[in-house]
Amino acid sequence: MQFVASEHQHRRLNPLNGQWVLVSPHRMQRPWSGQEEKPQLNVQPEFDPNNPLCPGVKRPNGIITERYESTYVFDNDFPALLEQVPSPPASDDPLFQAAPARGNCRVMCFHPKSNLTLPTMSATEIGAVIDEWIKQFNELSPKYAWVQIFENKGSTMGCSNPHPHCQIWSCSFLPTEPQLKQERLRAYYATHDRPMLGDYVERELQRRERIVIENPDWLVVVPYWATWPFETMLISRNNNKRINDLTNGQRHNLAFTIKELTTKYDNLFKCSFPYSMGWHGAPTGPEHAHASSAHWTLHAIYYPPLLRSATVRKFMVGFELLAMAQRDLTAEQAAQRLRQVDGTQHYLSK
Amino acid sequence: MQFVASEHQHRRLNPLNGQWVLVSPHRMQRPWSGQEEKPQLNVQPEFDPNNPLCPGVKRPNGIITERYESTYVFDNDFPALLEQVPSPPASDDPLFQAAPARGNCRVMCFHPKSNLTLPTMSATEIGAVIDEWIKQFNELSPKYAWVQIFENKGSTMGCSNPHPHCQIWSCSFLPTEPQLKQERLRAYYATHDRPMLGDYVERELQRRERIVIENPDWLVVVPYWATWPFETMLISRNNNKRINDLTNGQRHNLAFTIKELTTKYDNLFKCSFPYSMGWHGAPTGPEHAHASSAHWTLHAIYYPPLLRSATVRKFMVGFELLAMAQRDLTAEQAAQRLRQVDGTQHYLSK
Ligand SMILES: O=P(O)(O)O[C@H]1O[C@H](CO)[C@@H](O)[C@H](O)[C@H]1O
Ligand SMILES: O=P(O)(O)O[C@H]1O[C@H](CO)[C@@H](O)[C@H](O)[C@H]1O
Repeated sequence: MQFVASEHQHRRLNPLNGQWVLVSPHRMQRPWSGQEEKPQLNVQPEFDPNNPLCPGVKRPNGIITERYESTYVFDNDFPALLEQVPSPPASDDPLFQAAPARGNCRVMCFHPKSNLTLPTMSATEIGAVIDEWIKQFNELSPKYAWVQIFENKGSTMGCSNPHPHCQIWSCSFLPTEPQLKQERLRAYYATHDRPMLGDYVERELQRRERIVIENPDWLVVVPYWATWPFETMLISRNNNKRINDLTNGQRHNLAFTIKELTTKYDNLFKCSFPYSMGWHGAPTGPEHAHASSAHWTLHAIYYPPLLRSATVRKFMVGFELLAMAQRDLTAEQAAQRLRQVDGTQHYLSK
Repeated sequence: MQFVASEHQHRRLNPLNGQWVLVSPHRMQRPWSGQEEKPQLNVQPEFDPNNPLCPGVKRPNGIITERYESTYVFDNDFPALLEQVPSPPASDDPLFQAAPARGNCRVMCFHPKSNLTLPTMSATEIGAVIDEWIKQFNELSPKYAWVQIFENKGSTMGCSNPHPHCQIWSCSFLPTEPQLKQERLRAYYATHDRPMLGDYVERELQRRERIVIENPDWLVVVPYWATWPFETMLISRNNNKRINDLTNGQRHNLAFTIKELTTKYDNLFKCSFPYSMGWHGAPTGPEHAHASSAHWTLHAIYYPPLLRSATVRKFMVGFELLAMAQRDLTAEQAAQRLRQVDGTQHYLSK
């Protein structure tokens, strides 16, 4: 029998972290009688006097959120990372190793209106979000080794507030995922004398099997090693290393790319498509300021949980937690669906 | 200021996979207005004529589930792993690596009644589950490199059927997590000439800060590096390597240990406590049959998502997916609560 990736289970290697993913495309037919998600249907009021992220509302700590008109950033009232904490004592027991963790957590509102999301905002408004990301990155990156900009969208993804916003957690150290990536990208560069993701973009452009969106500055693909059903990577085609490298033209194009990708996501299952997304680029802070970043390529990653409809998600549980990631459709199948779905007009405006 | 683990954020190293966990205990105070879980309240009927896992019911594929009286095992009708599939072609491109994956997926019912769970079954009935695990392991392990026995309990954990059951997925290869563990356990053994988890058990017995249940055969702890809020490890104290090494006495004690642990879990938030759990031991199959397993210690891992109540869970999303695992209470705090909660009488029988 001839191997057909869209029919026959196999494993694929994620070269960014060295981990394999089990691909079982024949499993899409499985009936589902488990938990159903509440579909997110963009039914927020424009202004909610009890929502602390809305302009002019008092937050639990008594501070009043400014009457902002574009983006708005404030320190998280319950941060996972604080700046001033004592360090744990050193231990010489390999089984009980603790290390210091210092940092800072900010919340960034995208827009004053609660009933908008990135795909329903204008490209100009998304441009303001990108400019604010860069402003924040410029402020935080001289001090911190890692500035993680990320958005949890939708209650399915643990987002505790429906107002359009993201978070920025800065760390005095390199967290697990970026650390792994740093090592793997560096090793690839040492062997090939080229940044891994630069080569990857070139090969995806030749193979044309997993492309979702393509323009001169950005490539969106469902990566060959995707784990979440409709996972995508939005990769810089200009050898950018960090988000604050972007030229005005690249930022402008990025706003349109984000609008198109998130519109496709919403249109796929006709709902406000949940995901976690975030930016990865070369590490920062005093420790990395003078190190080479030649092996890095700026990219964003989208991890959306929905699998088959607005209410049926993929669960990464038992086998996935204990053994390895597993997916039920191939990256090529997911890319084809995302490529075909309309990215210009949002289903709510039709 | 003096460092106090229960107050000051820090990182801890998981020596089994080399990854760090961010511990932010001061964050437990954070208000929650995000998604609330449906609490699982053991309200299943004893028999549901439409549930394919109930005795005598016809499954979607036309096969009738036997009128079983204890445990019952059958092949998953929608397996992620099949035995007969062609292999993907070899590739010399490091960015597009695929590998063969063969295997087998079984479903194992714990009991004929749909309205029971492990904590509400008798120790004798749990004993039958353990015996069946061992029987299955004996059947599958000569052929497969990895036999993953795991239970997804509760719809919150993606379980698609409320009937008490687990799954057994066998793989022709070592999946990511066991592969990482294999390497780390082997390296520890090479340096210390002792199995890592044997040393770990000894030290936890001395420190007495994270113990939940302790008896001559088994130790249950919230590991120092736990990621999920009430994560536990159930570790063999007898240097067992695999589940089929267990003596009758050890199996007997295991049934009581599982009953006590799952009763504590249910009593903690007065609900049918969701989790994913599974067994890890030395790899198997022709490839590992003659390799040394001296570095391994048989253990089960429980990953429960609930954080603060029957309805508020921990989400491993944005920062966790993109940067690193993060938890909001210390392992010691979780262990103390689990130690104190009643493990002998289930809240439903009070
Ligand atoms: O096989 P089930 O119970 O239908 O499915 C559940 O467990 C599997 C193994 O962990 C996962 O792959 C699925 O995402 C989950 O919903
Ligand atoms: O900060 P939020 O949105 O309240 O919280 C959400 O995002 C955080 C960062 O990914 C996670 O740690 C929380 O589990 C999640 O609920």
